[in-house]
Amino acid sequence: MAKTKRSWKWAKEKNQKYAGIHLLAEFWGGKIIENSKEIERILIGATKKAKNIPLKMVIHKFNPQGITGVVLLAESHIALHSWPEFNYLAIDIFTCGGKAKPRRALNYLKKVFKPKKVEVKEIKRGII
Amino acid sequence: MAKTKRSWKWAKEKNQKYAGIHLLAEFWGGKIIENSKEIERILIGATKKAKNIPLKMVIHKFNPQGITGVVLLAESHIALHSWPEFNYLAIDIFTCGGKAKPRRALNYLKKVFKPKKVEVKEIKRGII
Repeated sequence: MAKTKRSWKWAKEKNQKYAGIHLLAEFWGGKIIENSKEIERILIGATKKAKNIPLKMVIHKFNPQGITGVVLLAESHIALHSWPEFNYLAIDIFTCGGKAKPRRALNYLKKVFKPKKVEVKEIKRGII
Repeated sequence: MAKTKRSWKWAKEKNQKYAGIHLLAEFWGGKIIENSKEIERILIGATKKAKNIPLKMVIHKFNPQGITGVVLLAESHIALHSWPEFNYLAIDIFTCGGKAKPRRALNYLKKVFKPKKVEVKEIKRGII
């Protein structure tokens, strides 16, 4: 969980250069996972799928329900915030550089949580 | 830095109910701050301006430059990732519930970093 050097290359697409991709995803009606250790494993799993390097993680379990967690990456972060009472899970995956695969992390999270409805926004960050 | 109960109320606007607001901001040409303790104070300052409750924080300093940090909130998160070599700072502020003031956190961060150019996207999360 520790590596301090950041590999860096701007992402490129046609004539555009940008820092990275930020995916914002809304999961509705999926599996409810409230166990901190399991959420930790899921975040690490997503990190690996995105070909990212995890640095540090924080997870907080709410009382009586809901869980919130972020894994800091050498390439930014993956965050997850759940509201089991509404069967809603907010995910965001921000991966910088041209090598990261944020969609793969998202697909992995879909497989884990199996939401009935998904909405995704893809936003390019740091467009030059 | 610890409080486990989440106060919760959907945000409302006209006929729309949603979980919260996610601001994505690009700061270009601002002050370069690479000190972890200072970043910690800035994140807490932003949290207070947004009327949020900080839960946990992680900060990572890259070698040789750049800093990345996230504060987990009872209302989601504030994240900050810097690339001093490009004078670029990526900020995102995700605050759930109707009481949070994410724009105030953003204005505070503008005052601290004094960027020459700012771009902001505001995205509603969890629209019912």
